[in-house]
Amino acid sequence: MSAPSDNPPLTSPAFSLAPTRHEIEEGSDLLPKFDQNGLMTAVAVDADSGEVLMVAFMNEEAFDKTIATGEAWYWSRSRHTLWHKGDTSHQIQTVIDMRIDCDQDCVVLRVKVAGDGGCCHTGRKSCFYRFVRQDHEGPKLVMVEQPR
Amino acid sequence: MSAPSDNPPLTSPAFSLAPTRHEIEEGSDLLPKFDQNGLMTAVAVDADSGEVLMVAFMNEEAFDKTIATGEAWYWSRSRHTLWHKGDTSHQIQTVIDMRIDCDQDCVVLRVKVAGDGGCCHTGRKSCFYRFVRQDHEGPKLVMVEQPR
Repeated sequence: MSAPSDNPPLTSPAFSLAPTRHEIEEGSDLLPKFDQNGLMTAVAVDADSGEVLMVAFMNEEAFDKTIATGEAWYWSRSRHTLWHKGDTSHQIQTVIDMRIDCDQDCVVLRVKVAGDGGCCHTGRKSCFYRFVRQDHEGPKLVMVEQPR
Repeated sequence: MSAPSDNPPLTSPAFSLAPTRHEIEEGSDLLPKFDQNGLMTAVAVDADSGEVLMVAFMNEEAFDKTIATGEAWYWSRSRHTLWHKGDTSHQIQTVIDMRIDCDQDCVVLRVKVAGDGGCCHTGRKSCFYRFVRQDHEGPKLVMVEQPR
């Protein structure tokens, strides 16, 4: 055991516990990375079609609850609250599987949606219901899905 | 023309130009909303399979360049630079179409990838190459795609 020092060696526990880039990118340990606001991006896609339904954010608690419960939890940036998706709308998202990206700061959830099967607060299945299209006057939005 | 005032009426141009929630959610005008860091989330999906390839961020310049050029531009948060995806890797992403979400703060790009068709800096097609799976010791990552 080495003597206490103001200059701990590079093999001190605090140093050696920091995961390497290889461990983050190629390892089997879950090492989720949240941004300076304590959030990571989460993309929910339809488990059958693969269609992107919504993009939201998770804080650590939402992330842990999603894994523990098998249902999608998010952090509402507008309401500043933990958000169990579907609690009021009945559009509970059951997570079929969840993937994390190379640097472990983003997840993709394949979900089955309960209730009316919708996801967007506007009454549509997906939040991505408008194309951005260029016309001679510049970019415009073109509706591809009406509220149900 | 009204006289200058420290208390402009609520019908001043600055007030009346703010888009309504209905205009943002149901309108055909592009009204992109960037967060406090000047960024919006962008999800790139494979144009053929719909598979999520990567999630990145766009600042206003990257957003405008993507629309103007038909190729994906992002903002690199780690390098603090505008990033024309594929400039060095040749994995240029040609945008087949682009959708924006209900509150216009996130986009999904359907892309065709040039070069070797990859997207992830680890040498894989997608950045989402590991499942998060629960086992008796807690959550672990399970590899689903090896580098090519």
